[in-house]
Order: sequence, then structure tokens, then C-alpha cells
Amino acid sequence: MAKFVIPRKTVYRLSLYFRIVERLFQNRIDTVSSAALAKAAGVKPTQLRKDLTYFGQFGTRGLGYKVESLERQLASVLRTARFQPVILVGAGNLGSALIHYDGFAKEGFEIVAAFDIRPGRAKGGHLKISILPMDRLKSFVSEHSVKLAILTVPGTSAQVVTNALVEAGIQAILNFSTIILQVPSNVVVNNVNLAIELENLSYFIT
Amino acid sequence: MAKFVIPRKTVYRLSLYFRIVERLFQNRIDTVSSAALAKAAGVKPTQLRKDLTYFGQFGTRGLGYKVESLERQLASVLRTARFQPVILVGAGNLGSALIHYDGFAKEGFEIVAAFDIRPGRAKGGHLKISILPMDRLKSFVSEHSVKLAILTVPGTSAQVVTNALVEAGIQAILNFSTIILQVPSNVVVNNVNLAIELENLSYFIT
Repeated sequence: MAKFVIPRKTVYRLSLYFRIVERLFQNRIDTVSSAALAKAAGVKPTQLRKDLTYFGQFGTRGLGYKVESLERQLASVLRTARFQPVILVGAGNLGSALIHYDGFAKEGFEIVAAFDIRPGRAKGGHLKISILPMDRLKSFVSEHSVKLAILTVPGTSAQVVTNALVEAGIQAILNFSTIILQVPSNVVVNNVNLAIELENLSYFIT
Repeated sequence: MAKFVIPRKTVYRLSLYFRIVERLFQNRIDTVSSAALAKAAGVKPTQLRKDLTYFGQFGTRGLGYKVESLERQLASVLRTARFQPVILVGAGNLGSALIHYDGFAKEGFEIVAAFDIRPGRAKGGHLKISILPMDRLKSFVSEHSVKLAILTVPGTSAQVVTNALVEAGIQAILNFSTIILQVPSNVVVNNVNLAIELENLSYFIT
């Protein structure tokens, strides 16, 4: 089935299923029921079954899904998404933290460069990558065919920097700033707002 | 209207609206149309209007919402959620990074202590808080009435640590580990999986 028909939230859940099925495969588990897989992914079994039909994967009643074949199919859907070079813009407190974070590289995403209005200011010890001035952004993105950017600038400059990213050819932005970015329809944005996540959780504390 | 009737995703959007309205208020803007507010929040105007009716806020046709009154009402819904002490468990790469991140404290959430199986290992320069051993978790949570935890341990130990958090009295967890946590129904979990966010974005790159 063509790539564009899978909705965004489904792709997100496919990433979850893939990680679970990878672990089952490594542990030499042959089959998994939709109930067990759904529970591990935190979704309803009906949701799981619906998601997996997007690429023609149907479980066998009473037997569940074959782990190896499911792993292979999910990998073929998602694998093309990996090994993307990523740039980070805004090497302040959070940006520097994320440059030090090794979880991206582990999953096939390498932060190849960072940009900041003050290239010298990255904090927290020795960095493996250079912090470049903003006027290098456009040529770097073009020379290295970068499509993906992590945005960790303050809310006040986030839209201006986003416009520069879009102009440079960036197609996808992981936005940590506190504003909602206005982008053309061919650019995708995922928002991670850590303070709002905490506010949301604490609202439900009794 | 009673607190429990507002769904989780609505509360998330209320946090977004609140931040926008706060900024408008600071900039001495009197009224905002539902179209403008919805655009700034990245939602549809119908969604915005529906969300705001949860606490009896109706815009005036042609005039929109009064910024000051909307700001006050959103604050009264969300403010109780702030100024919560937070603990962090897992002071590895990402955990240390988040301890250095000043965005939580800015929004009223103070990380009061961190815990790790190796209390000496936090990276990246001088920390303002102590890294305590795991056997101090239960007494600390109880003595300081902590309800909220940030979980940055590896996936392999995330469920075991979660069980300890729940037993200690933690009611809400911001989970950065790569597994879906199984928790009792009185405990809420929000998941932030940074690598999946990147994978999801890059799936949509053409």
C-alpha cells in the first residue's frame, strides 16, 4: 500500500509495535497474540488489528501474529525512515543537553551539526560536533542534504528560525519551543513541550 | 464543572491556549478571535470553541474572546497544577541533561532530587541537586509529598522502577523510556519518546 495513506498517528504506533516485536524476536519468541502486543504497546487490541491491516498483516485466529514476519514487515515500512542526518538549532540549555543525549544515534539518527546565534556558548563539557553560526545553516543543509531539524530555540525566535529552516530545505522539524510553528503544507512538525507534559500530568494528580 | 470531566487531550490543549493568551495579555491585547487563537494553537476553530465550553467560556460572535477573562479562567483551571515538586529517576545521559534544563523550573516545576542506582555518576558539570541512591526513594517521596516523577532509566529497568515509584506514592510519571509502562488506574503516565518522534517525522520526508 502506498506510503501516504498511513496516517501520522498510525505510523507512531507502528514505531511502538516495531520496538516490541524487535525485542520478542531477539528473545526468540515465535508468535504473539494481538492482546499481548496491544497491551505492551498501550493500545486496544481492535486498534492494533486495524493498524496492522494498513500493510496487509492479519493475525491468525487463536495463533496470533508470527513475530519474525511481523518484524520484517514493520522494518520495511519504517527502516527507510532511519539513518537520517539531523541538525539541531539552538544550543542553549536544552539543545546542549540533546546534543549529549546518545539515544538518537542509537536509533539511527545522527546530529551532524548544531547552529546557534552564539556559536561559542554550548554548555556541559566537550561536544563531539561543531556549533556553527546561523549564517552557515543554508549552505550546510544543502551540502549535506539534511531534511530533518531539531528546534530548541526560545519561543520568541522559533518562527523566524523555522522560516529559515524551511527556506534552507528542511522538511521535518522536531519542535521543543513553546509555540506552534506555522509551516507550509509540505513540512511536518512534531511538538515536544516538556513543561506542558508535566502540567498535564499534574492536573490529574489527586 | 468538576475537574474529572475534562479529557486528557483537552487539558493538553488548554495548556497551549493558556500560553498564547498569557502572551497576548502581556502584550496588552484585549480580544482575540477564535480563528486567530485556534491558528496560534494549531487546532481547528471548532475544536477550540468546543474545548472552551468545558468551563463555560463562550466567545461573542464578531468580537471573539476577552483576553483578560480567558487568561484568568484558564489560569484557574491549570494553576493548581503548577508548583509541584518533581523527582527524576535515572541520572544517565538524558536524565542529567534534563536536570540541567531550566525550562521546568521556569514553568513552576522544580526537580527537587534525582535518584540513580549509581548516585555518583551524573554527567555534565556541577548539579544543583543531589543524586540519591534508589533505597532513599520511598522515604524521600513520602517526606516531601512528591506525586510527580520523570523517568529516564533504560527500558530494561523501567517497569521495575515504575513499580517502586507507584509503591512509594507517585501518582504521575513522565516516561522517557522506550517501553509502555503498566500502572494501576490511579496513576497517569505521559510518554515522550524522542527517537520515535524523529522516526515518525522522517517517515514523512519525501
